[in-house]
Amino acid sequence: MSQDGRFEPRRPGVDYGVLDELTGYALRRAQIRMTEAFDARLGPEGITTQRFSALVLIEANPGLKQTRLAALMGIARSGALAIVDALAAQDLIERRPAPGDRRAQALHLTDQGRARLPQIMRLVREHDRDLTQGFSPEEIAVLRALLERIRT
Amino acid sequence: MSQDGRFEPRRPGVDYGVLDELTGYALRRAQIRMTEAFDARLGPEGITTQRFSALVLIEANPGLKQTRLAALMGIARSGALAIVDALAAQDLIERRPAPGDRRAQALHLTDQGRARLPQIMRLVREHDRDLTQGFSPEEIAVLRALLERIRT
Repeated sequence: MSQDGRFEPRRPGVDYGVLDELTGYALRRAQIRMTEAFDARLGPEGITTQRFSALVLIEANPGLKQTRLAALMGIARSGALAIVDALAAQDLIERRPAPGDRRAQALHLTDQGRARLPQIMRLVREHDRDLTQGFSPEEIAVLRALLERIRT
Repeated sequence: MSQDGRFEPRRPGVDYGVLDELTGYALRRAQIRMTEAFDARLGPEGITTQRFSALVLIEANPGLKQTRLAALMGIARSGALAIVDALAAQDLIERRPAPGDRRAQALHLTDQGRARLPQIMRLVREHDRDLTQGFSPEEIAVLRALLERIRT
């Protein structure tokens, strides 16, 4: 998330005011730390959290349209466009004409995307395990169940 | 988060591939739903999650410098600049010369910022309570304790 320096999650001498009382801010802090850890491990591969999500969704749903991808990822169309552009520039995915819709483009993995995905997956799984280092399997299950219940 | 449409968190007929197995993605989905709920409630006030965080940090730490704000929020300096610009345009905060550092600017709430903050706080607290609707106090405490342990 931070491009200029590391996130300072708990800085002595700083008053966080009401933020410390908010579940939403606890969620945001955890997400920032998660994103920084992801970037540290996957940055050398040119993969961000959002590019990874897009890659997996396109792999699992060949021919996915860009507008659909944006909705599935919960981001603006302009954001999805930038992610798709970056993945296409890395020759991991390609746009093809969508059958039956001349204005839409269908997204597919390239051969290189398919070849590189296992290594990327391996790094992401390592990263994800490290996120909850020291958690028991039960604690991980509880965390995920509680996260699912947030605002649903 | 989404500017064009609602996040589609769990769409029938879509394969989420490995994403469903990752704690990091569960965290991200929860954060997107949180942000959408925040925007729905605070959008009419012109307040986003990041503007609110900045406002609280400036209120609690008068004279905070912009570079410090970026580090505290875990965002790039350019992002902090955009947030400060937006809050200044709303006449909620102002930049003043920082004592002893001619190049730096110190951030302060304006009178209008101080006047509007209680109403903004009230809406944010309502929003935050709604995030964990149906949670017991113990479940909220467990969620926050587990979130704090992620990657720390």
